[in-house]
Amino acid sequence: MNQYSDDSFMLHTDLYQINMAETYWRDDIHERNAVFDIYFRKLPFGNGYGVFAGLERVISLVERFGFTESDINYLRETGYQEDYLTFLKNMAFTGTIRSVREGEIVFGNEPLMRIEAPLAQAQLLETLLLNVINYQTLIATKASRMVQVAGRGTAFEFGTRRAHETEAAIWGARAAYITGFAGTSNVRAGKLFGIPISGTHAHAMVQAYQDEYTAFSKYAETHKDCVFLVDTYDTLRSGVPNAIRVAKEFGDKINFKGIRLDSGDLAYLSKNARRMLDEEGFPDAKIIASNDLDEETIMSLNAQGAKIDSWGIGTKLITAFDQPALGAVFKLVSIENERGEMVDTIKISGNPEKVTTPGKKKVYRIINNANGKAEGDYIALEDENPQAEEKLKMFHPVHTYISKFVTNFTARELHEDIFAGGKLLYKLPELEDIRRYVEQSLSVFWDEYKRPVNPEQYPVDLSPACWEHKMKKIEEMLPPSAR
Amino acid sequence: MNQYSDDSFMLHTDLYQINMAETYWRDDIHERNAVFDIYFRKLPFGNGYGVFAGLERVISLVERFGFTESDINYLRETGYQEDYLTFLKNMAFTGTIRSVREGEIVFGNEPLMRIEAPLAQAQLLETLLLNVINYQTLIATKASRMVQVAGRGTAFEFGTRRAHETEAAIWGARAAYITGFAGTSNVRAGKLFGIPISGTHAHAMVQAYQDEYTAFSKYAETHKDCVFLVDTYDTLRSGVPNAIRVAKEFGDKINFKGIRLDSGDLAYLSKNARRMLDEEGFPDAKIIASNDLDEETIMSLNAQGAKIDSWGIGTKLITAFDQPALGAVFKLVSIENERGEMVDTIKISGNPEKVTTPGKKKVYRIINNANGKAEGDYIALEDENPQAEEKLKMFHPVHTYISKFVTNFTARELHEDIFAGGKLLYKLPELEDIRRYVEQSLSVFWDEYKRPVNPEQYPVDLSPACWEHKMKKIEEMLPPSAR
Repeated sequence: MNQYSDDSFMLHTDLYQINMAETYWRDDIHERNAVFDIYFRKLPFGNGYGVFAGLERVISLVERFGFTESDINYLRETGYQEDYLTFLKNMAFTGTIRSVREGEIVFGNEPLMRIEAPLAQAQLLETLLLNVINYQTLIATKASRMVQVAGRGTAFEFGTRRAHETEAAIWGARAAYITGFAGTSNVRAGKLFGIPISGTHAHAMVQAYQDEYTAFSKYAETHKDCVFLVDTYDTLRSGVPNAIRVAKEFGDKINFKGIRLDSGDLAYLSKNARRMLDEEGFPDAKIIASNDLDEETIMSLNAQGAKIDSWGIGTKLITAFDQPALGAVFKLVSIENERGEMVDTIKISGNPEKVTTPGKKKVYRIINNANGKAEGDYIALEDENPQAEEKLKMFHPVHTYISKFVTNFTARELHEDIFAGGKLLYKLPELEDIRRYVEQSLSVFWDEYKRPVNPEQYPVDLSPACWEHKMKKIEEMLPPSAR
Repeated sequence: MNQYSDDSFMLHTDLYQINMAETYWRDDIHERNAVFDIYFRKLPFGNGYGVFAGLERVISLVERFGFTESDINYLRETGYQEDYLTFLKNMAFTGTIRSVREGEIVFGNEPLMRIEAPLAQAQLLETLLLNVINYQTLIATKASRMVQVAGRGTAFEFGTRRAHETEAAIWGARAAYITGFAGTSNVRAGKLFGIPISGTHAHAMVQAYQDEYTAFSKYAETHKDCVFLVDTYDTLRSGVPNAIRVAKEFGDKINFKGIRLDSGDLAYLSKNARRMLDEEGFPDAKIIASNDLDEETIMSLNAQGAKIDSWGIGTKLITAFDQPALGAVFKLVSIENERGEMVDTIKISGNPEKVTTPGKKKVYRIINNANGKAEGDYIALEDENPQAEEKLKMFHPVHTYISKFVTNFTARELHEDIFAGGKLLYKLPELEDIRRYVEQSLSVFWDEYKRPVNPEQYPVDLSPACWEHKMKKIEEMLPPSAR
């Protein structure tokens, strides 16, 4: 069908980026240094925090920056001229990227990533970077909510069949794993990322043998670790008794790890199945539940005393069902002028939330040395040094008349150097390190920010200098009709 | 990070498929012929019809069926034994696939695709096929709703940055295009599928020049076709006047195609912008609107008399925001027994909707010859021939006491032969043919099935023989506890 090979992500962008880059190039401003911030305004799912994910993927895509022969041929066909195509063909990434670490706990309106690059290069990365960061951060955040209610290492990602095409399935599985999921059913995700994989059999196997006892026996003959799916016909009258019968018959020949419930009233069924397993001498057999689970269902089942040891979570996680999009944006905050000076920029909007914060900035997490807990995040201009301040004033994010002074603190900068001058500086952590990092990062936050329902809002403040700089820029720009 | 190369989709499946296939292989039933139906139970978004998509992608994935060296190496690492790995390594697809065409109008509970293959092969395809079909059909259906309210060829897909990772962006763009979208902003989708691409410039360009008039002029100097984004500062006081000024200054040197509104009250702004453009001599300049649009917003803007000519649609389409998952399933309906006879299978459930329909079946669209309209879809057993019947009885899908006889009809079979004996038989249609096919297929349905809000429910009936066969199977299986 397609005459061009799928050998590049350079065209995985909105067409306007290519058209704007042409204007910049023909007007000879394409090399001007530009600084863009990536951030989202509002946390998804009403959650009190976000979990940043996507950095590893972003790095691999930036490392592949460069138009291929087939990209150029396609653009030629659509009408671009040879001189511009030659410019594109020779383009390499020479910029600098700073970013929070993968697995960092993040909040609205703070720069997650900062791209400083020649204008045309930065513009050509916008769409691709947002595509990756929006999805992976969304799923990591959703997964972390689920881990908060289910417990670390108790949930498995089972959503591939409902994911949005193939890449969402594997990168979503990875995002879930770093937040504390125990593993995934997607074998390709296991192969590519080293995530533990999980799964035994489906209803189809029971149907294929047309008899539950035979199906379980055949599985036990061919696999050491056995989890039997017990709801094909009747969970308590057929499934659980057949599982117990096979477990007894096979004895030490198998590891009878437990049963899976995939339909019906999971609270009622799990309590009865638990009792039956215990009475028959299998107190260590686990009960795994699946079937359209999300953090709300898990909380409610736990509240009802359901005897569920682990959770298979599909659709609601992998699609972020209740809010399937995160709105991270890529905004110009500073650009070089014709005299080679950097000029900070602002975008004004009728909606105050949409006004950007101009200038090159750094983000700090302010940790109270007395208790090790986070007091708030602090966004300062590039050349400020919050650690040198004797005290920092932190405002309540909504009711700003409430404020506090923080004195004995550590200001930990959240951004790491990823690329400088187009070169990768960052050593990618192992997946297990990222997973531990999420746990460790969350531990510095009070529980009130972490509860899934009605969490407290964590302070994200601008430094006084950053705030004044923004106000000055707003004044310069307003009223726009008078310019 | 990853030691294995991403060179195959064979492991893009749930682990249990690999484990079940091992049981089948060790028990020597892996070659038994098995028939699986793919179907969804309930239409998404409360829509009256679905648009099937994903066939081209499915074909390309089935053609690549086969474990690679790296797949096998990974499975070895996870503990599978050499004999089973050798079996997997030598496995090829030898099955038969029948499917509705890409772009077919489809409904709940009718088989979209039928896979008949040796048991282990079919099982290994389940997850991958569902992953692709669920997403693409979901987006095609969502897009078709939008086309119903916006009109064919007036909407553009702009959602890449909010899509769920990279493949959702391009396959979603393709799904939207076949239903009647005019194009996409995603250049890679244009390159790979030949979809028209669209886009001019973003707010960032206005910010980069820090002056709207300069930005528009520079764009006009470097591009023939101009659509100016007019809401960076103040749409009616700055944006539209600057667009008009540049259009007048450049005259014939550019095609002033129109303006884009991306924020604010789109009804109010579009009406005023229209008046200004008309008064200044640009009655042909189009007004394009974007900003979180969906079918409801479009209907409401149209109802308010908004003067919008085309629509840039992002998040709400590409994520299927209000229902981001379609629940298509893959169910065993027939399997060979130890004597080589096919035995039809059923899955019983406490939920009547979840009871499967056993046996090899065909799906027919019953067209009334008098008016060319569809009377209903008719699911019959493989060897039935509905066209030979003098009259067909069609039931109301919910109130089954309401029924009608259809006499002068054409029974059009909906499934095409795609693969037979592992060989591709089907000639893939061109994208434009698929797009025309959607339009043509929709035209045989009465409007009452096509309205986006509270549509009538279209009849999907089982033939009497199919129905009786199902009832007989249910009797055989119930009560399951007495088996």
